[in-house]
Amino acid sequence: MQDIIVVKVGGSAGVNYDLVCDDIAALVRAGRRVVLVHGGSGETNTLSEKLGRPPRILTSPQGFTSRYTDAETMDIFAMAIAGKMNTRMVERLLRRGVNAIGLSGIDGRLLEGPRKASVRAVIDGRQVLVRDDYTGKVEKVNAPLLRLLLDAGYTPVVCPPAASTEGEAINVDGDRAAAMIASALGAKQLVILSNVPGLLRQFPDENTLIPRIRYGELEQALSFAEGRMKKKVLGASEAIVGGVAQVVFADGRVPGCVQAAMAGAGTVIER
Amino acid sequence: MQDIIVVKVGGSAGVNYDLVCDDIAALVRAGRRVVLVHGGSGETNTLSEKLGRPPRILTSPQGFTSRYTDAETMDIFAMAIAGKMNTRMVERLLRRGVNAIGLSGIDGRLLEGPRKASVRAVIDGRQVLVRDDYTGKVEKVNAPLLRLLLDAGYTPVVCPPAASTEGEAINVDGDRAAAMIASALGAKQLVILSNVPGLLRQFPDENTLIPRIRYGELEQALSFAEGRMKKKVLGASEAIVGGVAQVVFADGRVPGCVQAAMAGAGTVIER
Repeated sequence: MQDIIVVKVGGSAGVNYDLVCDDIAALVRAGRRVVLVHGGSGETNTLSEKLGRPPRILTSPQGFTSRYTDAETMDIFAMAIAGKMNTRMVERLLRRGVNAIGLSGIDGRLLEGPRKASVRAVIDGRQVLVRDDYTGKVEKVNAPLLRLLLDAGYTPVVCPPAASTEGEAINVDGDRAAAMIASALGAKQLVILSNVPGLLRQFPDENTLIPRIRYGELEQALSFAEGRMKKKVLGASEAIVGGVAQVVFADGRVPGCVQAAMAGAGTVIER
Repeated sequence: MQDIIVVKVGGSAGVNYDLVCDDIAALVRAGRRVVLVHGGSGETNTLSEKLGRPPRILTSPQGFTSRYTDAETMDIFAMAIAGKMNTRMVERLLRRGVNAIGLSGIDGRLLEGPRKASVRAVIDGRQVLVRDDYTGKVEKVNAPLLRLLLDAGYTPVVCPPAASTEGEAINVDGDRAAAMIASALGAKQLVILSNVPGLLRQFPDENTLIPRIRYGELEQALSFAEGRMKKKVLGASEAIVGGVAQVVFADGRVPGCVQAAMAGAGTVIER
């Protein structure tokens, strides 16, 4: 059986989805099996602003950030990501001859995990408990569903939300979801595309790109990874622990970005 | 093989999705295979208004109405229907123990048909040609994909948009899409739920419910069917031509509505 490649494409400004889909189409035409995972934080923020509900970001005592997702925010999140982004990504692939099929994590409990009973956050320097937040962490992937579709010739395009154990839609981190998918499918490579060339020692100076990093050095990498890159480093770490041989952080703004990353362009993380 | 039931639930105010999903869960627990199809015109209108892009409705020279769907409207349509509505419908079913999987018509070209090159519409009494409209009509259903999922124990929850022959997302009528799905799957029954008890001879007088109507009388029914009911009558007609034994228009506001409809409550249409 051909190796499966999991490609995660970020939702930040600058990432060129047309180029990403060009390259995925080339891979699929060459007989490779690809799972595309996407987020959509930028679209969610834009829609939130347009609807007069500006995004609220929670910061944990450890410095990780997450979107405060009450029921109404979940509607906005689902509309932007599972609605607009996923539809348009599938459309891009269909137009390139790829038999794409869009799924959010709640479909068939594709991505499942417990909803956090409460989230600890620092607001104005004080720790508070937020209780009406629909967030969680993916602990289980419905790999048989993905294999069923891959075996039938489809290219899954997966996005949050995930399903809580109780079946509620919950907000989960896309990078870490992609890592769980790559582990569950026994993928050899996980490619994480964003609007930077990889992990930068001094963000945003692209001349400080780290070309290669070993699993044991990842904890140290957390210290200089800026905001959103922190979760990508966590995801990479989880993927390596989950058996993925190689995680590559690469530039999603350039032609041929997926195959270049597979060949080692960007930051390559290995056990 | 157990018969497949196709249930179409409308997007109009009053339809009670919780009750519909209660009843679908009961059917699935009893071993029945169900495909749920939904629209979301109400949600789309609400979101359009909130985003400052009030819906524009085109009326054909024959008196049929359709949503004017330029690229931006398609984004709104996908957000409201494939994003919010589909996510929440799948969530309702998951919470009731049904292994639901949400799909829009572009996923794996589940619903496919040609995009209309132009749409003839009557505006201020004059016929005009509208050319930037992403609409079409479903001519092909990817029945093998639905069977693949049904055989694996999933309950598909399907909604527009569909895929054009060229792979673009296009707006299609949900009732007629449901009719095509029922025909393609060889379903014995198609249940079409809305916020009225069935086809009314004098809308909105519910005492004028027509309990039974033969295929040959459907053309006549078009003459007194009001606005949105016209397309349901067309869909029913297409389903019967497609080999579906029975189409039932029924009330989606009451407990047990799906099984009641299957037993003949509402307007039963037969060849």
